[in-house]
Amino acid sequence: MTDKLIKVRAAVKLVNDKLNFSGIVEGNSPVSIDYIPPLGDNLGYTSLELLLLSLSSCLGSAMLLFLRRMQKSISEFEIISTGLRNQDHPTGFKSVLLTIHVKSPDVNEADLIKVAGLAEEKYCPVWSMIKGNVLINLDYTITR
Amino acid sequence: MTDKLIKVRAAVKLVNDKLNFSGIVEGNSPVSIDYIPPLGDNLGYTSLELLLLSLSSCLGSAMLLFLRRMQKSISEFEIISTGLRNQDHPTGFKSVLLTIHVKSPDVNEADLIKVAGLAEEKYCPVWSMIKGNVLINLDYTITR
Repeated sequence: MTDKLIKVRAAVKLVNDKLNFSGIVEGNSPVSIDYIPPLGDNLGYTSLELLLLSLSSCLGSAMLLFLRRMQKSISEFEIISTGLRNQDHPTGFKSVLLTIHVKSPDVNEADLIKVAGLAEEKYCPVWSMIKGNVLINLDYTITR
Repeated sequence: MTDKLIKVRAAVKLVNDKLNFSGIVEGNSPVSIDYIPPLGDNLGYTSLELLLLSLSSCLGSAMLLFLRRMQKSISEFEIISTGLRNQDHPTGFKSVLLTIHVKSPDVNEADLIKVAGLAEEKYCPVWSMIKGNVLINLDYTITR
């Protein structure tokens, strides 16, 4: 395995005669990737869904690392992503809403805004790669 | 299920006390997402690997659609992605090399360059979202 701090590798291999790919990274179960009918057959994640998983897991990881450094106690943490596509090509996201749900006895909304701001500025590499091209909005819900 | 041509949804939910998330999109098997030690435990795809799967499947789909419109016959199609990370935060990709392997009796390199160009300009939404932020290089291998 290469050092993932320096170099990251992945492969996609076509597995049918339409658009179903098997996504492969050494050490992981393959991910089925496909597009919606009629071009694909809904046999897996779409490329845009994978982008949302990439972005939200990156943001979530950065936020959790900072919240833990602040000695906050987190019992549940979830991010729901909704991306609105441009209706003309290229049909990427015009905007993405990330709704962050946290269950914690001691986290407040100001804490979440602070750590999300750190992620946006500097510590979420996926966010940095789409910055300027996609509008990202955040929303928070906290339960005790 | 919402209309994925308009709105795309995904969720990530923390499943341990470090950085292991379960990535969920309705209708698909969950994807395990994690980071490398010591912050994570290598229990799944990293966010940056998911970005490579997203980008390469998007590019591959656009290329295949155009190659098929050109009546080309494709028996194997694979894209190997290698992303080189910035060494300062944000540690996203400085550059990504996408190596496209095609097995076909009638595709030549000029065809691949042409359809990849169409994807870059307009038909690969993931590429459009990182454009200007990440340098993308393409390389081709063809077998008969």
